[in-house]
Amino acid sequence: MPAPAEGARSDRTGSTRRQFLLGGAVAGVGAAAAIGVDYALNRQDTPAPTPTTPMNGDEVVPFFGVHQAGIDTPAQAHGLFLGLDLLATTDREGLTRLLRILTDDAARLTQGTPALADSEPELAMAPARLTVTFGFGPGLVARAAGTGPSWLAPLPAFTVDRLQPEFSDGDLLLQIAGDDPLTVAHAARMLLKDTRSFTSLRWSQNGFRRAYGTERPGTTMRNLFGQVDGTTNPLPGTKGFDAVVWSDDGWLAGGTGAVIRRIRMDLDKWDRLDRSGREASVGRNLVNGAPLTGQKEFDEPDFAATTAIGFPVIPQFAHIRRARGEDGEQIFRRAYNYDERPAGSSVSESGLIFVSFQADVDRQFTPMQRRLDELDLLNEWTTPIGSAVFAVPPGCREGGFIGETLLA
Amino acid sequence: MPAPAEGARSDRTGSTRRQFLLGGAVAGVGAAAAIGVDYALNRQDTPAPTPTTPMNGDEVVPFFGVHQAGIDTPAQAHGLFLGLDLLATTDREGLTRLLRILTDDAARLTQGTPALADSEPELAMAPARLTVTFGFGPGLVARAAGTGPSWLAPLPAFTVDRLQPEFSDGDLLLQIAGDDPLTVAHAARMLLKDTRSFTSLRWSQNGFRRAYGTERPGTTMRNLFGQVDGTTNPLPGTKGFDAVVWSDDGWLAGGTGAVIRRIRMDLDKWDRLDRSGREASVGRNLVNGAPLTGQKEFDEPDFAATTAIGFPVIPQFAHIRRARGEDGEQIFRRAYNYDERPAGSSVSESGLIFVSFQADVDRQFTPMQRRLDELDLLNEWTTPIGSAVFAVPPGCREGGFIGETLLA
Repeated sequence: MPAPAEGARSDRTGSTRRQFLLGGAVAGVGAAAAIGVDYALNRQDTPAPTPTTPMNGDEVVPFFGVHQAGIDTPAQAHGLFLGLDLLATTDREGLTRLLRILTDDAARLTQGTPALADSEPELAMAPARLTVTFGFGPGLVARAAGTGPSWLAPLPAFTVDRLQPEFSDGDLLLQIAGDDPLTVAHAARMLLKDTRSFTSLRWSQNGFRRAYGTERPGTTMRNLFGQVDGTTNPLPGTKGFDAVVWSDDGWLAGGTGAVIRRIRMDLDKWDRLDRSGREASVGRNLVNGAPLTGQKEFDEPDFAATTAIGFPVIPQFAHIRRARGEDGEQIFRRAYNYDERPAGSSVSESGLIFVSFQADVDRQFTPMQRRLDELDLLNEWTTPIGSAVFAVPPGCREGGFIGETLLA
Repeated sequence: MPAPAEGARSDRTGSTRRQFLLGGAVAGVGAAAAIGVDYALNRQDTPAPTPTTPMNGDEVVPFFGVHQAGIDTPAQAHGLFLGLDLLATTDREGLTRLLRILTDDAARLTQGTPALADSEPELAMAPARLTVTFGFGPGLVARAAGTGPSWLAPLPAFTVDRLQPEFSDGDLLLQIAGDDPLTVAHAARMLLKDTRSFTSLRWSQNGFRRAYGTERPGTTMRNLFGQVDGTTNPLPGTKGFDAVVWSDDGWLAGGTGAVIRRIRMDLDKWDRLDRSGREASVGRNLVNGAPLTGQKEFDEPDFAATTAIGFPVIPQFAHIRRARGEDGEQIFRRAYNYDERPAGSSVSESGLIFVSFQADVDRQFTPMQRRLDELDLLNEWTTPIGSAVFAVPPGCREGGFIGETLLA
């Protein structure tokens, strides 16, 4: 029997997935239309838009809950990842105060309400599915005098790594994601201002996916190599997803583990590879992401299939063959592309902010990364230049704060 | 009689503007819905979305025309501005070849068609209102052995300027704007690859406004100070707009002049100013951008109005009073916000990519900037750190190329 897919393949079929997506899309539009009308009625001097006018700006993701938002939330268009270091003067009490303040900021801003003493309250009015997700590095857990999960440490060194400290590690992660870049910028500023007495900014990574409205909700993202990226993800709302993502371990119960790696993609070198070489390197076609043994994106790859002259159709070095793990080694990916001002004579400085969530980083992520480190043709064109691991605590109820299971 | 508004105030009333915007929104949604259906029918294994599903990805702005696109086009969410320098080896013939190639790339990519030899054709499939707009600096016109308009030169030095060469000047401007950041990144890469034999990249500035779907089309943008920014703009499609923007001068006829200035905004210092101070500095309220003498955004400011004790309601140093020029001194603004990774202990590196279009930079832009240089309270919180002027040639027909009026 072939191993299950990297994701929770057994929890869905192609058709239930499609039904889910269509249902989600329709429900989403109804909500957006209703919100659009509400939006107009609450703004002065504004003609009511027709109910079909898309008005994503007012769409809200609940902040309070068993889990933090921004993990099983359908990925928003913009993701800003901030790695902070605690100042030496921030003790356990200060840390608690910091997390109470940031929780309050996030609870307000994500609902389209200005933060306390918000200096630009008008910029907070369009939440556009804003989420703020907190993660704790080893240094924060130590400062809290707590005990972290055994996997909460820098990943083992991989031979492909060329890590830069300015994109690695950190005590506190803020993942700020939303469909509107102005909303994300404002939220980041309000949150960062409130961290100033407690932390310093260690790194900042800004990424993007397709904009709201570009594609049907649920379309798998493409990276800057043009590849469909994330097909095998378990689907939020399924038992498979829950098993992959949510921890049941002590203060982390209801939380998860986050791995954030900055993967530089050498687009110039990639340009020198022809289309069939690109498809062989991944094991999927480029048009729709179908495995080389299939027709459609969600077709199960047939790793045993061989060509007429006996070679595997999906090569031994192909990324999807190497990435596929044993049962229990699945992860949930939620990556963002980056494309920045190039230095020198290059015309591109681009890559992927790889983001994965899994209950146990050692058990689920590291074996896969070891296999990819040993052999993965994609390594020819990609270089990890940043790496960080965080424990993402559970959500909280109104009146509580993120991190209370560790600190309270 | 008070001077006319900075924009083409006489061409519209508040109500005609509102009717225009509402009409535009309704027409846009119809087109998007129709495209949504088409989108579904042309993709395999895809359920047809309901016609109300927003599908901005397939919206197309025509490339060919009397004027270049990206000027009177409603501003897209993302704007990437690239300043290129011609290599010493690029002669008039090489320049012509370059512009023919880039025109072909832009004509295809903006219509959702891959560029010739597009290395990632799948990334070209969602144009999302992509536009590519070309501008010529003094060096390019000289290389073409042409004569530029008298204003085609660096702006005069202003006392507020702290210009950095890495954000200033340049021979060739590419303004790449669209509602989807992945589309913009892909278009930029394809265009830049084709410039490599002819130019070097001098500067790159990436900016954003509200996302597609966040607000009703036509809502005036807000900058990172929270201010409504651009109220007095003339409205595309009006005679006032045409008079402000389009040149009728020689090879530039049907084109315009572009001023691009990078304005650093000191958000930390701005934080120390209270709300009434902020409103006084601009002369408008923050809630809806109404002048301090009015109730609604598009109310005409009353510069003669005084308080009970005789002070002007709109202070002498207020930005809107200082910016307002004589008739014939209007400009059309099309700015983008920027928010980048801060250096050192700062939590923000933010500002505005100021972009204005006007037929005659000397006559329309420079007098206003001189007044603002002499006195504008906003200078306390803003610093121009980059500046460039370009002549933006007219559009072309299919088979022609951008720049043919200068080079053919």
